[in-house]
Amino acid sequence: MPLEYRNLDATTAYTGLKNIDAKAISLKKLLTPERIAAYSIPAGAGLTYNYATKKVSDQVLNALQRLADEQQLIGKFEDLYHGAIVNPGEKRMVLHHLLRGQLGKPVTYGTKDLGAFYAEQQQKIADFCAGVHKGKIKGSTGKRFKTVVQIGIGGSDLGPRALYLAVEQYARERGLLKMQARFISNVDPDDANGVLAGLDLATTLFILVSKSGTTQETLANEQLVRAKMIAAGLDANKHIVAVTSETSPLARSSAYVASFFIDDFIGGRYSSTSAVGGAILSLAFGPKVFEEILAGAHEADQLARNPNIRQNAALMDALIGVWERNFLLYPCTAILPYCQALLRFPAHLQQLDMESNGKSVNRDNQRLKYSTGPVVFGEPGTNGQHSFYQLLHQGTDIVPLQFIGFKEAQTAFDLDVEGSTSEKKLSANLTAQIAAFALGRENKDNPNKHFEGERPSCLLHGDQLTPKSLGALLAHFENKVMFQGFTWNINSFDQEGVQLGKILTKEVLAGTKDERLAAYAKLLGV
Amino acid sequence: MPLEYRNLDATTAYTGLKNIDAKAISLKKLLTPERIAAYSIPAGAGLTYNYATKKVSDQVLNALQRLADEQQLIGKFEDLYHGAIVNPGEKRMVLHHLLRGQLGKPVTYGTKDLGAFYAEQQQKIADFCAGVHKGKIKGSTGKRFKTVVQIGIGGSDLGPRALYLAVEQYARERGLLKMQARFISNVDPDDANGVLAGLDLATTLFILVSKSGTTQETLANEQLVRAKMIAAGLDANKHIVAVTSETSPLARSSAYVASFFIDDFIGGRYSSTSAVGGAILSLAFGPKVFEEILAGAHEADQLARNPNIRQNAALMDALIGVWERNFLLYPCTAILPYCQALLRFPAHLQQLDMESNGKSVNRDNQRLKYSTGPVVFGEPGTNGQHSFYQLLHQGTDIVPLQFIGFKEAQTAFDLDVEGSTSEKKLSANLTAQIAAFALGRENKDNPNKHFEGERPSCLLHGDQLTPKSLGALLAHFENKVMFQGFTWNINSFDQEGVQLGKILTKEVLAGTKDERLAAYAKLLGV
Repeated sequence: MPLEYRNLDATTAYTGLKNIDAKAISLKKLLTPERIAAYSIPAGAGLTYNYATKKVSDQVLNALQRLADEQQLIGKFEDLYHGAIVNPGEKRMVLHHLLRGQLGKPVTYGTKDLGAFYAEQQQKIADFCAGVHKGKIKGSTGKRFKTVVQIGIGGSDLGPRALYLAVEQYARERGLLKMQARFISNVDPDDANGVLAGLDLATTLFILVSKSGTTQETLANEQLVRAKMIAAGLDANKHIVAVTSETSPLARSSAYVASFFIDDFIGGRYSSTSAVGGAILSLAFGPKVFEEILAGAHEADQLARNPNIRQNAALMDALIGVWERNFLLYPCTAILPYCQALLRFPAHLQQLDMESNGKSVNRDNQRLKYSTGPVVFGEPGTNGQHSFYQLLHQGTDIVPLQFIGFKEAQTAFDLDVEGSTSEKKLSANLTAQIAAFALGRENKDNPNKHFEGERPSCLLHGDQLTPKSLGALLAHFENKVMFQGFTWNINSFDQEGVQLGKILTKEVLAGTKDERLAAYAKLLGV
Repeated sequence: MPLEYRNLDATTAYTGLKNIDAKAISLKKLLTPERIAAYSIPAGAGLTYNYATKKVSDQVLNALQRLADEQQLIGKFEDLYHGAIVNPGEKRMVLHHLLRGQLGKPVTYGTKDLGAFYAEQQQKIADFCAGVHKGKIKGSTGKRFKTVVQIGIGGSDLGPRALYLAVEQYARERGLLKMQARFISNVDPDDANGVLAGLDLATTLFILVSKSGTTQETLANEQLVRAKMIAAGLDANKHIVAVTSETSPLARSSAYVASFFIDDFIGGRYSSTSAVGGAILSLAFGPKVFEEILAGAHEADQLARNPNIRQNAALMDALIGVWERNFLLYPCTAILPYCQALLRFPAHLQQLDMESNGKSVNRDNQRLKYSTGPVVFGEPGTNGQHSFYQLLHQGTDIVPLQFIGFKEAQTAFDLDVEGSTSEKKLSANLTAQIAAFALGRENKDNPNKHFEGERPSCLLHGDQLTPKSLGALLAHFENKVMFQGFTWNINSFDQEGVQLGKILTKEVLAGTKDERLAAYAKLLGV
């Protein structure tokens, strides 16, 4: 069937969903052990998506299935991984799925087989890592590299950083932590100066990440790093590798020990499983750990091809998100991992979601009359319980919650304190929160101690956060965001909203003639 | 005049504000260099609050002044610092202002002068720090302490951590970094295990922070730390100090090297300027740096007593927030510091704001019909520009923005790259963003490249983030949140919304009979 692109509010399913009496859906009435067992979908690599505490009834789910069918979400995903131009604004294919496995037919650009190209880059990285880890590739004073520092911003920072932190203790515990990683992103010189203050530069390898090779912040930070290395008597060219596109000014320059390539079909926020994440994660943990992340992501990608929403976790999650955004009218979503290793995963998902779907025009550049992507924020639990959960429980707005939890910690050391280990306490807290939000608790005497309940959440759970389950977790959200973009009929793969700031920054640095800009520039000491 | 408590929607000013045609207020029309100069208020310690890019007209400001007068906001603040019971639910005074200086008459509890009590605790901390820094107080194997680790959660973690990070590079650059600090908060054992993996326990001093002495997470982490110390052959009792209340089980126990006290009148999220922040910040940077933070906070507190909203930065910020929340109907606020040192300051403000004002009942426990505290989130710029700013610029919802910026970095090393230093680039980017959000840029040919503008922001700016300006920044937001609470007629100082989770956690750990809780507990391995 040929693909058709239509706005959400032009679908029949939209009208059907509008006509559902959402207020009649009560979690207090609906939630049973049977529902908890039934409202559960495998999400890859041992993860399970449970949506029993979402405000959905069978009627809603059936309508969402019709919406998925009508908007041809699976067909559009197929189109994407077969190499169609699904980023119409930039006239580009979108191929991050191909980084972790072949979902459809081979994708070529001209005569270039892109799957082979990505695999080749990964192999180059693995070979380079072997050289570094065995001490064959060393710093300019002959010392082995012990630390690796990524210089990059946005997608070149948030995803790789979140994944590094998610695996660091896991790897240390298992003797797999080959190099400590650090990250420099902000153009504020305090960022680079702070990171560099704690390092022995002679044993530090830097990874400069910029697809275009022109990112202002990244190039400024490169120069700060080079100046510090020169001052320390080091040959900077022997301490930096580049991750960039083949056509960038950084590619194959003698200023870098090596260059690893990405291309225009890997968007920044979708690049964690490319060389952008691959170089630093492979250096830190070894290429095999990175391969496990890819394998987990590929498993989730394969599951995302199922047209039955009740069997496709990412698709179900996406559609429930649309239900919450456009029919229940909730403006935000919180990401709440009960897993300290995921401490920066919410910041990555914030970019992934808000940069992809924070759009006001459809893929044909027509203004939309309905809401698109929500505000996404979050912190790990139990920390958040002692912070912003007050508003989540008793505030005047309802915020849908995305919980993430595991049976086992990544590290083995734990103690029984007052009858339970820390890990059991963590899981018990998560259990309690899911119930508290859904079911509330009445207090007729004191409205200040009354919990209304009916606050929706869902849960992604598994046995342990491993590189493989982490990969599946990452891909789950990438695919969720993609399906939502298709449903809203927007282009989730461009980011024109960041351009005006870049243009005006240049104007300000060149000495603007706009008196208003000049006034602010003066206040800020430009 | 006696104080009266009435709901926001029961005021005359409310009706006046409702009747203003907000859509007629256009930043594109209003923003001029004159407005930028005029809409500016000193915020203490060299900070300035600029609200020229807020969607307010003189008509709005006059109505907000009437609202401030009618709700007796300054009178209620006076009542607070004179020691009235302004936390009615818990029947407590609210005295964090007293930690940094006397604003009103002496406050006593029974015969105890509380100002003197807080000063005494600060002096005890200073004396203890002198002992540690001079090497008179050492670890159990006779080694000097080099690292200090705070064990605490929520207010015992977020504020102190944000402040530590905000001063770390400043102090290092100036030779004031006496001890490196680390933080353990989450009950997830991976948190403690990860922090401890990088430490030499023989030279590490821990600060256990729990007002009640019963915080589940903190006590569990204490036992993990003690077990590790015992395994390393150390006497744990010589490596931990306690920050707690005088009546807590931790107070004056021989299990701790020393105890520093807080009391019930210092709420967790308002405790950064008490011993909760004071112990770790004084150990890390010396007591004088902590005193500067207090001095800056006191300056901001003094300015917050001015009844003229055009001369009271915190009050103006609070009232504009109410205008945005209840009349422009914006559900979120983003905190965007262009200052890497403030990387965790948004997480602290998220707690401060959402835990204080995420309430649905008024101070008399009556259900409210209007919105209270917004969702608060944020990350440092320029990082955020490469992440969620897409939605801020072109999403379907409008998010008010709180920018923070400084003329100078905290560290001196910087380079001119392509005509400007990194610090100038940072300030130029901030300048550009303020203008881009307010003014937008038309693109008739391509709606995808069109920027509507009219997206409001405000700017807190100063010469440099120093301990003193940091103190003022902290107090600005504490006072803003307090004034908003008074305006909404809610109790900003309790947090009943966190209680149900604690109760249910105990039920789960005890083996719940509720089949739904049991089902989730099983999924999560409790």
